[in-house]
Amino acid sequence: MAAIKVHGIPLSTATQRVLATLYEKELEFELVPVDIKAKENKKPNFLNCLNPFGQVPALEDGDLKLFDSRAINKYIADEYAGKGTRLAFGDNKKKAIIGVWMEVEAHQFDSAASKLTWELALKPVYGRVAPDKAVVEENEAKLAKVLDIYDSRLAQSKYLACESFSLADLHHLPTIQYLLATEAKKLFYSRPHVRAWVADITARPAWCKVLCHVEALS
Amino acid sequence: MAAIKVHGIPLSTATQRVLATLYEKELEFELVPVDIKAKENKKPNFLNCLNPFGQVPALEDGDLKLFDSRAINKYIADEYAGKGTRLAFGDNKKKAIIGVWMEVEAHQFDSAASKLTWELALKPVYGRVAPDKAVVEENEAKLAKVLDIYDSRLAQSKYLACESFSLADLHHLPTIQYLLATEAKKLFYSRPHVRAWVADITARPAWCKVLCHVEALS
Repeated sequence: MAAIKVHGIPLSTATQRVLATLYEKELEFELVPVDIKAKENKKPNFLNCLNPFGQVPALEDGDLKLFDSRAINKYIADEYAGKGTRLAFGDNKKKAIIGVWMEVEAHQFDSAASKLTWELALKPVYGRVAPDKAVVEENEAKLAKVLDIYDSRLAQSKYLACESFSLADLHHLPTIQYLLATEAKKLFYSRPHVRAWVADITARPAWCKVLCHVEALS
Repeated sequence: MAAIKVHGIPLSTATQRVLATLYEKELEFELVPVDIKAKENKKPNFLNCLNPFGQVPALEDGDLKLFDSRAINKYIADEYAGKGTRLAFGDNKKKAIIGVWMEVEAHQFDSAASKLTWELALKPVYGRVAPDKAVVEENEAKLAKVLDIYDSRLAQSKYLACESFSLADLHHLPTIQYLLATEAKKLFYSRPHVRAWVADITARPAWCKVLCHVEALS
């Protein structure tokens, strides 16, 4: 039995974010499926033991229990710093720059990217409802502004925080992957430095292993 | 001239978050006012040198430049770990629990609390417009659910992450302070453990120093 357990589902962007980190760190783990349709994540056992907010993923590492994908990833990067890919590294100043771009993902990029992922990729399949054009338009405009800044940044450094891949890049993978299969891909492909960065990070072997979990469902 | 400069405005919750951390760490700093009315934060100098997203605050510590209040605070807590109040501490497991509750503030609490701060505290004064009742109702309901979880958590430990005050608590201060002067104060006062926690953290000397900046404006 693996010491690390991830309670989650392969289709969830937040679960994918944690799986990508575990694969980058070459750690053994067990993915424990959560039955979202049966609202297992809203039942007392899940709420009391794993995440009081009833969301996936949650992590167990021995007797440590954590929730929130970004907090989990930060822990994995720190606790297993010596294993696999270095994802949060350097002195406090270097770590601070990675921290800034992790916050940019969480507070500038993700809001628009997640709404578009829902409208364009998930709602038509799971909700069987057409995308809301006004919401798509509004969030494409917001994401375009963010990606303009990313394109300038990525003209200066290969990755968002520095010359090496870090958690700041990794955290973008799940929503970008969904959006590349939608009309929103134009936002990434029309910006040359963003386009090269997206091609680079989505081709990482660890990320391809995450996609195998998703493909196994179809 | 202080080595640490904060570019911001005392009324901004994000600026207040950084000032609270600097006072907790007993660090000398200079608050450099940004003329928001003149859109100084949207001009090339600010965008190119301080924050490409055009928001306050931004920090300079010697030749290091950072933006995003939460990333700035994490840097200050790590870089000046030995000064003033310990705000991010312990082994990786303890730090991970603090990290989880920092993400809870950013992703569960802040969305509703910030919208209520705007509707109830800032819009009537600066926009001279009455609050939107539907937005207030929706976000009071959301915040109530989050505070129910906080009340259970704070029945088990004195502060959100553990028995000691940490960045996870501090990050809540600015919006809580604004909301205590509005009808939304009932959400905090009606939950006994939340009420005690709010009384404790808003009485911290470092926070009172931040409020002096705000009072100096009125």
